[in-house]
Amino acid sequence: MKKHNFSAGPCILPQEVLKQASAAVLNFNDDNLSLIEISHRSQPFVQVMEKAQNLVKELLNVPKGYSVLFLQGGASMEFLMVAMNLMKVNGSAAYTNTGAWAKKAIAEAKDLGNAIVLGDSSDKNYNYIPKGYTIPDTVDYFHCTSNNTIYGTQIKEFPHCPTLMVCDMSSDIFSRKVDVSKFDLIYAGAQKNMGPAGTTLVIIKDEILGTTGRNIPTMLDYNTHISKESMFNTPPVFPIYVSMLTLQWLKDLGGVDAIEKINQEKADLLYNEIDNNSLFEGTAKTEDRSTMNVCFLLKDESKKEAFDKMWNEAGISGIKGHRSVGGYRASIYNAMPIESIQVLVDVMKKLEQKDD
Amino acid sequence: MKKHNFSAGPCILPQEVLKQASAAVLNFNDDNLSLIEISHRSQPFVQVMEKAQNLVKELLNVPKGYSVLFLQGGASMEFLMVAMNLMKVNGSAAYTNTGAWAKKAIAEAKDLGNAIVLGDSSDKNYNYIPKGYTIPDTVDYFHCTSNNTIYGTQIKEFPHCPTLMVCDMSSDIFSRKVDVSKFDLIYAGAQKNMGPAGTTLVIIKDEILGTTGRNIPTMLDYNTHISKESMFNTPPVFPIYVSMLTLQWLKDLGGVDAIEKINQEKADLLYNEIDNNSLFEGTAKTEDRSTMNVCFLLKDESKKEAFDKMWNEAGISGIKGHRSVGGYRASIYNAMPIESIQVLVDVMKKLEQKDD
Repeated sequence: MKKHNFSAGPCILPQEVLKQASAAVLNFNDDNLSLIEISHRSQPFVQVMEKAQNLVKELLNVPKGYSVLFLQGGASMEFLMVAMNLMKVNGSAAYTNTGAWAKKAIAEAKDLGNAIVLGDSSDKNYNYIPKGYTIPDTVDYFHCTSNNTIYGTQIKEFPHCPTLMVCDMSSDIFSRKVDVSKFDLIYAGAQKNMGPAGTTLVIIKDEILGTTGRNIPTMLDYNTHISKESMFNTPPVFPIYVSMLTLQWLKDLGGVDAIEKINQEKADLLYNEIDNNSLFEGTAKTEDRSTMNVCFLLKDESKKEAFDKMWNEAGISGIKGHRSVGGYRASIYNAMPIESIQVLVDVMKKLEQKDD
Repeated sequence: MKKHNFSAGPCILPQEVLKQASAAVLNFNDDNLSLIEISHRSQPFVQVMEKAQNLVKELLNVPKGYSVLFLQGGASMEFLMVAMNLMKVNGSAAYTNTGAWAKKAIAEAKDLGNAIVLGDSSDKNYNYIPKGYTIPDTVDYFHCTSNNTIYGTQIKEFPHCPTLMVCDMSSDIFSRKVDVSKFDLIYAGAQKNMGPAGTTLVIIKDEILGTTGRNIPTMLDYNTHISKESMFNTPPVFPIYVSMLTLQWLKDLGGVDAIEKINQEKADLLYNEIDNNSLFEGTAKTEDRSTMNVCFLLKDESKKEAFDKMWNEAGISGIKGHRSVGGYRASIYNAMPIESIQVLVDVMKKLEQKDD
């Protein structure tokens, strides 16, 4: 039976990407060698890396003066690297606290200097995006999280920023148009809209580096990786290859402009059902609702067993909510077809009808 | 045409592993979902992680009190983490300098404290393993590299060590019996004998941690990963899965005992040809020759064109020597069948016959 994969990450990837990736594990580039048994310095893989970098630049309109890196360690390693590379000795940085991941980013910065929290939605279990704060121009940088996977909230308008702007876009990069020139550093774990787990995308304005006065260990220094074009040491070959395929799929689809429209339609379909169905309610503040992660609850917990049975039988997987929010979370990333969301909506409608 | 893949890393993996990996990218665990689109917290993947850890313990006879981790960042990240986690504030460590990778490890330790170099073979382009040095019991740890991929040298007998013993086994782990109880920390990038690039194996004695007096950033602290069993954040799912398959393949073959014998036969076959063929010479000191990376030169460079044409036509790939040694390097890791080495030996014989 076809599965409708609403997993929060690692998550659904395009079927044709999976087919190409599967084939390349057996025979890559028609060389009778597997993608994963060739040298990362060989021409075929160097071309993969270059193509992946160029697709990022093209899809996001990355301006000149920025480098595109494929690193390891996930966003969690970037929490540390951002502070290491941008916070001056005895310096300070401003953070928004919009969820579990933002909190971890703040913790790493606090270890290295003064981390000020400007906007904080922990008072309401992170169900909204803080607004109206003013970023001081005295801090070394400002850090925010564009989309909060666990709570289903998303920044719709980025604040005016008089200092360096850094953003963790792990769960919504490539899902909507973003003016990269307004950011100095963007990072994202691959495993939502870009590819499989195991690589981290970093887009960084070169000129912001080298001013902290801090001794940065080799592997944590962005300049190490910029100077070697993400090949300082052996890169994660397979995750980068599959990311390249996924970015090519997105380009063929019409790029970020096209997917943004599709993602909005998908989100509207599901949020409309949540709002109109008497059995459900959304958890995030309406104006801050994420187009990637849709969090909702059953108003009456006694319906849980029936609902769980129904979506299970419909081939739906991965919609259990995160333990800190409860209920359900439908992650509807780029590769999720609207047909799968319709299946979920139909189940929700059926539950309501049954209830009458 | 069948390829004989002598690549130094990423390198040859067992054909049946590649087949299983390719299939899992389409449909894993018969769930109609790809391995790379399921949650790393789902039962099927948690089982993969546990199985991989258990296979490491079983194949290497890892004693109680050690943890097995699958991290990211390659050996290069371990150069930093080892010093961060084991070198006391104002402490010291002893290193052997046996090649390019050892040198990088030393550089990271020097950034954090006093790194003493005890054995150094840089005087002869690293073509031998230094011996006869005494490790002082006053240093926080001793670090060595068991096999030097670029130069084709390998430690045959580990020194007596009165302090913590740390070893980078990236290019010969699982190739021969090792008494893990003599080591306090072993690490290895996956991309030689364990799996594809993108994960790093760490075997660590738990009790040695937490004594440096140093503030260790979250992601660089081995205790972070031990406490979450390598799931502190999203692990590199595919590289770990393929590593698990490769370790299972090794177990089915008879384990490390069996592969050690096979590897010795393979190495003997090739070194005998190098020693007996009038056109070739080995670069590494005989007693220190690696069973994994066989480095050799043509005595007469004018034969290069003919030799290169011949091995190319025989379907051999990846035997170009590293630029710092020149000549040829045949990497003959666990998955390399003796038949492929015979093909290379036959080409070498044919070249000599032609020369008569």
